[in-house]
Amino acid sequence: MANIGKIGVFTSGGDSPGMNAAIRSVVRTCAYLKVECVGIYRGYQGMIEGDFKPMDARSVNNIINKGGTILKSARCKEFRTKEGRQKAYDNLRKEGIDAFVVIGGDGSFTGAMIFNQEFHFPIIGIPGTIDNDIFGTTFTLGFDTALNTVVEAIDKIRDTASSHNRLFFVEVMGRDVGHIALNAGVGAGAEEILIPEENLGRERLLESLKRSKESGKSSSIVIVAEGDKTGKNIFELKEYVEENFPDYDVRVSVLGHMQRGGSPSCYDRVLASRMGVKAVEALLQGKTNLMVGVQDNELILTPIHKAIKGHTKIDKELIRVSDIMSI
Amino acid sequence: MANIGKIGVFTSGGDSPGMNAAIRSVVRTCAYLKVECVGIYRGYQGMIEGDFKPMDARSVNNIINKGGTILKSARCKEFRTKEGRQKAYDNLRKEGIDAFVVIGGDGSFTGAMIFNQEFHFPIIGIPGTIDNDIFGTTFTLGFDTALNTVVEAIDKIRDTASSHNRLFFVEVMGRDVGHIALNAGVGAGAEEILIPEENLGRERLLESLKRSKESGKSSSIVIVAEGDKTGKNIFELKEYVEENFPDYDVRVSVLGHMQRGGSPSCYDRVLASRMGVKAVEALLQGKTNLMVGVQDNELILTPIHKAIKGHTKIDKELIRVSDIMSI
Amino acid sequence: MANIGKIGVFTSGGDSPGMNAAIRSVVRTCAYLKVECVGIYRGYQGMIEGDFKPMDARSVNNIINKGGTILKSARCKEFRTKEGRQKAYDNLRKEGIDAFVVIGGDGSFTGAMIFNQEFHFPIIGIPGTIDNDIFGTTFTLGFDTALNTVVEAIDKIRDTASSHNRLFFVEVMGRDVGHIALNAGVGAGAEEILIPEENLGRERLLESLKRSKESGKSSSIVIVAEGDKTGKNIFELKEYVEENFPDYDVRVSVLGHMQRGGSPSCYDRVLASRMGVKAVEALLQGKTNLMVGVQDNELILTPIHKAIKGHTKIDKELIRVSDIMSI
Amino acid sequence: MANIGKIGVFTSGGDSPGMNAAIRSVVRTCAYLKVECVGIYRGYQGMIEGDFKPMDARSVNNIINKGGTILKSARCKEFRTKEGRQKAYDNLRKEGIDAFVVIGGDGSFTGAMIFNQEFHFPIIGIPGTIDNDIFGTTFTLGFDTALNTVVEAIDKIRDTASSHNRLFFVEVMGRDVGHIALNAGVGAGAEEILIPEENLGRERLLESLKRSKESGKSSSIVIVAEGDKTGKNIFELKEYVEENFPDYDVRVSVLGHMQRGGSPSCYDRVLASRMGVKAVEALLQGKTNLMVGVQDNELILTPIHKAIKGHTKIDKELIRVSDIMSI
Repeated sequence: MANIGKIGVFTSGGDSPGMNAAIRSVVRTCAYLKVECVGIYRGYQGMIEGDFKPMDARSVNNIINKGGTILKSARCKEFRTKEGRQKAYDNLRKEGIDAFVVIGGDGSFTGAMIFNQEFHFPIIGIPGTIDNDIFGTTFTLGFDTALNTVVEAIDKIRDTASSHNRLFFVEVMGRDVGHIALNAGVGAGAEEILIPEENLGRERLLESLKRSKESGKSSSIVIVAEGDKTGKNIFELKEYVEENFPDYDVRVSVLGHMQRGGSPSCYDRVLASRMGVKAVEALLQGKTNLMVGVQDNELILTPIHKAIKGHTKIDKELIRVSDIMSI
Repeated sequence: MANIGKIGVFTSGGDSPGMNAAIRSVVRTCAYLKVECVGIYRGYQGMIEGDFKPMDARSVNNIINKGGTILKSARCKEFRTKEGRQKAYDNLRKEGIDAFVVIGGDGSFTGAMIFNQEFHFPIIGIPGTIDNDIFGTTFTLGFDTALNTVVEAIDKIRDTASSHNRLFFVEVMGRDVGHIALNAGVGAGAEEILIPEENLGRERLLESLKRSKESGKSSSIVIVAEGDKTGKNIFELKEYVEENFPDYDVRVSVLGHMQRGGSPSCYDRVLASRMGVKAVEALLQGKTNLMVGVQDNELILTPIHKAIKGHTKIDKELIRVSDIMSI
Repeated sequence: MANIGKIGVFTSGGDSPGMNAAIRSVVRTCAYLKVECVGIYRGYQGMIEGDFKPMDARSVNNIINKGGTILKSARCKEFRTKEGRQKAYDNLRKEGIDAFVVIGGDGSFTGAMIFNQEFHFPIIGIPGTIDNDIFGTTFTLGFDTALNTVVEAIDKIRDTASSHNRLFFVEVMGRDVGHIALNAGVGAGAEEILIPEENLGRERLLESLKRSKESGKSSSIVIVAEGDKTGKNIFELKEYVEENFPDYDVRVSVLGHMQRGGSPSCYDRVLASRMGVKAVEALLQGKTNLMVGVQDNELILTPIHKAIKGHTKIDKELIRVSDIMSI
Repeated sequence: MANIGKIGVFTSGGDSPGMNAAIRSVVRTCAYLKVECVGIYRGYQGMIEGDFKPMDARSVNNIINKGGTILKSARCKEFRTKEGRQKAYDNLRKEGIDAFVVIGGDGSFTGAMIFNQEFHFPIIGIPGTIDNDIFGTTFTLGFDTALNTVVEAIDKIRDTASSHNRLFFVEVMGRDVGHIALNAGVGAGAEEILIPEENLGRERLLESLKRSKESGKSSSIVIVAEGDKTGKNIFELKEYVEENFPDYDVRVSVLGHMQRGGSPSCYDRVLASRMGVKAVEALLQGKTNLMVGVQDNELILTPIHKAIKGHTKIDKELIRVSDIMSI
């Protein structure tokens, strides 16, 4: 049995909807289990600077439905150095913190893993990122909300799309992975979905758009993941298509950071609440170096090094569904 | 290999968000696989009346994001009789329909199963109901959307709740099952969740509300599933609480049918799109009498009699999470 | 020229979306014009208890989009007594507050007016109520948002309505006035709108519903203002209609306090921002005992006694529009 | 008294939320007043091609809440020629249409005015555009909805903004006018608003951003109207700021056509319903060559040539409010 009397919690990396719900859950589970809880501001940066604040059940009132993170988030170069981590460790010890829960993506988990190796400090990770690119969990916190944000935006574009000979190119997040583009694309009924994992070339895009037109569609929506390489970027791709498909006007939307914000969906809130409980309980049971994930709607624990190194693959079945749906 | 050249599709029972997305998917998968598709209006009623309409890929444009069902839905007593089913069968044969996909809940599946037994007519079910009470699938179409509708409504109530010594009682759907109440209750941060599966008595509710107040909460939200028996109904429960807890005003909201409508969430749209493909493919592979479900984000097929008779249990872990969160 | 160096601001009565935006505007206008600003918590109650907090431009970060009121609101009996008001005055003087801005409805304004008469204390009102029942302003803060909340709820109900022989009764706020019911009813395309100002009797409702059915409508939505007297209450009215119109099922929604919350619409935020500037400027110009209102999109000032005693009439043109639209 | 037995209705130019509600109102008012009504598809293009469809009260069921336009819209070069207009006139006469209601912006009104001059054909305009740039009406249909779309998007960006040293540049519609940028900017609490009507130079932008940072803001949101000339375009402006303000990352969102779509706000629906009634009644009273507008919440009629030539000025008071709010 671990001897854990005080747990720290922080968010790190790009924020995602559901992080506040996860913080709330960690804090309230600590209160429920009579363990002290300390919020660490701005992730590893705040750990190095000793930016701590004790938290009780009432500190997290009315945040479950808020986007962003009340503990703020930052990227921190100093934590990549041995000295930085030592400072962080010293601060944690001074504050009497015995273990921490880190809410973030794989960069944040890597930091935690190294920290655990160096100081034998108990850590548990909760996957908070809109990208859904963490191995060991079917869904990451924020992915579901981001998908809803994207489809709601595209629904509005679709309203206006039906009147004109127009193509709408919509850029969504995803530098390395196309999970948002593919799922939101199917959800929004996009005619084409361009993702980093598949580059079929821009000629094929053109052909496909022409086929769409011949099949009687008066307008089409093309989802482009940030990291897609069909064009140099979405504006260059627009020019290419307009040159080669002169009947059509192409209009571009770049959704940007609205995808990281917004009130979390019920799914993300429930998942965050469940994960926070699991994370605290795991620490109190003496577990460490694990990430909480969800698989078949059950919570599971995965060694954090596997979560980092594992790969999430693009869903081939869903690509096929998308092809069929855009007939 | 089955000899299926024309597939019928219909929605039946109470409608749910995602039904249109499932119709669209069945229709477009048929078009993609060069099978004819016929829409049957108003469920079994339309089958008995021969209310059919051929559908092609363009018939289902711009419906993926719409609540309700373009094929309409109805409950049908006549289909419970042998004569009614014979009429339906004759109409299907006359129209040349070789198999059908039924989108609905367990009542609709029971009808389909009996029909299959009597006429050896190939059928596949897609679970469309907001109640999430179908065995053989982790999620039914519409559940995710309904949860978002409920938490968005309660978020608004929460805004105003924080100013006053007030209790808010919110009635949500669920005559026999508390899945909506429990999940939306956790997602909305409700202090109490009253579900049909658990009746702890109204004295315990009172104690719990008093404890809440003592812990410093200035107001509380209580979710009450339709089928909960803590009080005779939500208004009677309100009177009981106000009599016994005189400091507090109780305000009641009855969300009602708004929970069945609304634009489906991305999750429900993607799931519906996937299920429609799977249903058509299963029929073409000669399968029958099965329901498409989702388990661990993979599609599975369950014998429809199991889907009907199986039980979905309330999630004990989630009840515990709810207790911890409302500390 | 008035000698005003410190301004108090508070919200009072039932809260409404846009109150936070108005607080933010008062606080920032004070900062901009180099006047001190003090937040008074829980309205007149906090004034009597001396529950004050100095506010600067940064105190109101990130609240423009939040429902509710960060200063909280309360109803206060003690302020109706001379002793209560004397305590409040003493506290204001002790804190050095020279004038205040009250954000609320006519009850709150009446308190302010009496206070002004007794102590010659400068006051300005900003109309914050969802009911739109204040004379001297075309729109009150929160009305626009509440209308959007109601129509969004009814849109969801409408999705499901089209499938069945059903009537949906939706109760909306409005004990004495039907502005919400009438505007949201037209906006949502309701077939019938029942308001306190007009009681045509329940027989007429029945006839109208029957006419609706004969005209080919398969379902209808009836908006019922809280204060409507067509039935004893919405449930009694439901029973009456079901008895006399047996083909139809009546389903009831009671929207309740969700109408008071939610993120304010852009209109309410802009209006709140403008009104806050105007209120502070008026006080600094030595004006008092006025309410800021909007007329033809311009801000105007009305003597507060007129705002209280004046009447807002139900819009006859809109009743006619509603009759025409529900043909 | 005019001898008008059949009225045409169409939408023209860029679509805007509320157009469907206006169509519905024109159609139902005709039905109510026992005048025939014909929908003209794709604006002037459909008039030239004789693309007409008779409409009755039931043709416009369930469209009040839909974005886009069921009659579709198009820009039409041929109508700019005398021959084109002659064809249109001949088609209208053949169909027995005696007058029309045009829903659109000033380009559409100009066409209608010329048509009226040439053929003495009775016409009435309803201002449908998100830009709010029509003289003779305080609000155009769609403006209110577009503002809500923009502030909801920026609210999400704001959630994530608070964690980082970041600037968010958000491009909104408005090639010639800054009404959307200015109102949505105030509503979203933007730190800077760049509009076509005012070009203060990019140096001033830089200074202002630096001042913002010094005042303690950790991040800022800058709204840029499409037609703003502070930079060559939003991406060039981003580069300029990043070069000269190296501490900060600039992230860009281009909202694009989502601003033209979406379910209309209650305000836009009510206004559309009222305007449709007024337009039909005006035609039946023998009026012509007028635009229906709203002023101080009352409907007024303005000669259409004034509506076209008049100018809507940017609201100086609101610029001042914006400056004060971003302190």
